[in-house]
Amino acid sequence: MAADGTRSQQIIERCLALARFSEETDGATRTFLSEPMRDVHRSMRDWMERIGMQVELDAAGNLRGRYPGLEPGSPDLLIGSHVDTVPGAGAFDGVLGVVIAIALVEALEGRRLRFGIEVAAFSDEEGVRFGVPFLGSRALVGSFDSALLARCDQNGKTVADAIRDFGLDPDYLPAAVLKNNFLGYLEFHIEQGPVLDNLGLPLGLVEAIVGQSRLELRFCGHANHAGTTPMLMRKDALAGTAEWIGLVEHEALATPGLVATVGEIEARPGAGNVIPGEVRASLDVRHASDDIRVGAVDRLVNAAGDVASRRTLTVDCVTRLDQAAVTCDHHLLARLERGIVAAGYPVHRMASGAGHDAMILAQKMPVSMLFLRSPGGISHHPDESVRPDDVEAALQTGLSFLENLA
Amino acid sequence: MAADGTRSQQIIERCLALARFSEETDGATRTFLSEPMRDVHRSMRDWMERIGMQVELDAAGNLRGRYPGLEPGSPDLLIGSHVDTVPGAGAFDGVLGVVIAIALVEALEGRRLRFGIEVAAFSDEEGVRFGVPFLGSRALVGSFDSALLARCDQNGKTVADAIRDFGLDPDYLPAAVLKNNFLGYLEFHIEQGPVLDNLGLPLGLVEAIVGQSRLELRFCGHANHAGTTPMLMRKDALAGTAEWIGLVEHEALATPGLVATVGEIEARPGAGNVIPGEVRASLDVRHASDDIRVGAVDRLVNAAGDVASRRTLTVDCVTRLDQAAVTCDHHLLARLERGIVAAGYPVHRMASGAGHDAMILAQKMPVSMLFLRSPGGISHHPDESVRPDDVEAALQTGLSFLENLA
Repeated sequence: MAADGTRSQQIIERCLALARFSEETDGATRTFLSEPMRDVHRSMRDWMERIGMQVELDAAGNLRGRYPGLEPGSPDLLIGSHVDTVPGAGAFDGVLGVVIAIALVEALEGRRLRFGIEVAAFSDEEGVRFGVPFLGSRALVGSFDSALLARCDQNGKTVADAIRDFGLDPDYLPAAVLKNNFLGYLEFHIEQGPVLDNLGLPLGLVEAIVGQSRLELRFCGHANHAGTTPMLMRKDALAGTAEWIGLVEHEALATPGLVATVGEIEARPGAGNVIPGEVRASLDVRHASDDIRVGAVDRLVNAAGDVASRRTLTVDCVTRLDQAAVTCDHHLLARLERGIVAAGYPVHRMASGAGHDAMILAQKMPVSMLFLRSPGGISHHPDESVRPDDVEAALQTGLSFLENLA
Repeated sequence: MAADGTRSQQIIERCLALARFSEETDGATRTFLSEPMRDVHRSMRDWMERIGMQVELDAAGNLRGRYPGLEPGSPDLLIGSHVDTVPGAGAFDGVLGVVIAIALVEALEGRRLRFGIEVAAFSDEEGVRFGVPFLGSRALVGSFDSALLARCDQNGKTVADAIRDFGLDPDYLPAAVLKNNFLGYLEFHIEQGPVLDNLGLPLGLVEAIVGQSRLELRFCGHANHAGTTPMLMRKDALAGTAEWIGLVEHEALATPGLVATVGEIEARPGAGNVIPGEVRASLDVRHASDDIRVGAVDRLVNAAGDVASRRTLTVDCVTRLDQAAVTCDHHLLARLERGIVAAGYPVHRMASGAGHDAMILAQKMPVSMLFLRSPGGISHHPDESVRPDDVEAALQTGLSFLENLA
């Protein structure tokens, strides 16, 4: 098996070409089963069929190509990522992982391995169109249930409608569930963060996908006149929220690996000359260890209560998401690590702070992920990029991994 | 001159009756030259004409009644307040001051004083309809200029249109300017704050109307993924703003008489899983001393800069309002104070944290104000109230004041 700069150049060119298939002109915008997704499928199907893969579109709109192993009935390795995007996205988030998977099969130049390879291009990971992420990979693990089918997009179309409009049949969703025996799942993905770029490293070995808590907090005080209410007679919900935001930041800074973010805030009534009587704020907490994450969330909820009672405010905390961390399989990681070393690159183990399809596949099989550096940490933006050398590093690591697994 | 519980009861009944003249059913809503204002004028004109006052509606829609003095050419005392409201208001903010003024003249029972009394019911103090307050009292001091006349309400009507629709002629605005010789201005107004209620006092002698600064701040950092961006690599505009809000509160708590409020805040992009890249916040700072207020604003602007530079954010501060404090006339205050004492009530001197028509009249004459307790500090709300005993106290104080001035 050979890997050279030509392949990595072709990978980048393919990603850039696919980015033109977009619902909008300002960056790539390609939601679940949108028309531009057909164009992506057409190109990918063409690339996969040309190298002898059997390609099918499952009922959830996942494009799946199989490259058989040496013998019938041999187990498969699943390699995949997603081909949907956020609005105004770049060319590499998701798509790069599928294009690298196809390039790996291509690099085998027809040689059969002791296992088959299934390449999966998931139809939805971002969850933009229906507000629920992972519609694609859920279909492979059998969690694409009827409640999901009834969800509506902004135009009142249900998921089932979207599937039918794309020429597919939601009744065939059970047939999309993985049936073969799988060795595991491998996903290549851009980091979407600044860590590798800051360290000057091309690749990151993902040990775990962090668990995530999302909460909504509502601090209530008493709206009052900003001129006539002395400071000591105020119940200022925003002053209380601001104090708590400081504690959120402090907790995260004091806990290695923890990230905690208040991204949304709304003060009511929201006039410059009225003391805020009510503030709603979001809290997002992530860590590779569920114990550390849950402990931090508990402390931050308690801190909100303390701040509120000291200020004679009230606070409600509602948990919107409590998602456990997913640990990558250490056998697969060890093989990937050997691949990185064999290809001559330094090994950096890290957690993924973002969710990925690997989280869903982990319900069915051992999973592994390899991150490629995101220059400037930029993602979900038309300026998102990858360095050709890093794609080359990922490709060589992938080839060594296949060799090793074989 | 006599004052008894009957008069104060009648004052409250009159206010409650006028509150029914409203653009909406949910609380009193009566904006500049709205139809319900005609009904208020009709009632007030009737009350004033019945006690021998000469009543005119000036071109700015201010209803003005004159009760002549002993001799032609004697100077006048101006007593007034406003009859417009915020949306969903109570029955007493503004209106009470006019109704008390009429009741004071009524209590003279025809007796002439050495000065005339002009009662003014200003058509706009709240500034709801055209976004500029004090349209009414500005006309009396000659600052109702052509730029004001061209402002539009939400329906595209200009101030000039509103004046004409009410049957008045904007060309006659110069005739609304005060021409007589005035001894000064007296305004009765509910406190609209909790201070007197907390102290258990019926009346407050207003020494000054606070000066006010309003600023808009914009903290800019870098929007980024809440999961993939480690804490130490963040430029979180909201974390910076929250720290600064704590400093705003601290500055105000440390400075006697200062109030400082952040009432508006907007974080962008405003998603729970995105670190805020930009936050806009308002700042409202008030104090009876302009030096103290300006010094506090300077410190808070510097503090915003310090917070921003420590966090590698940037911050812009734009001043939207810098309004000097207005000091009430100490001769008039001394007479009011003697009135309070004569009527048997304790004297409490205080600053008004809110703006009032007296601020505008101060451009032309010495001004004075007397606050009536606001039960629960509630104002700008249908639950706004006054206690009959407090109205009685104000009325007796007013009568003593007139006696004293005479």
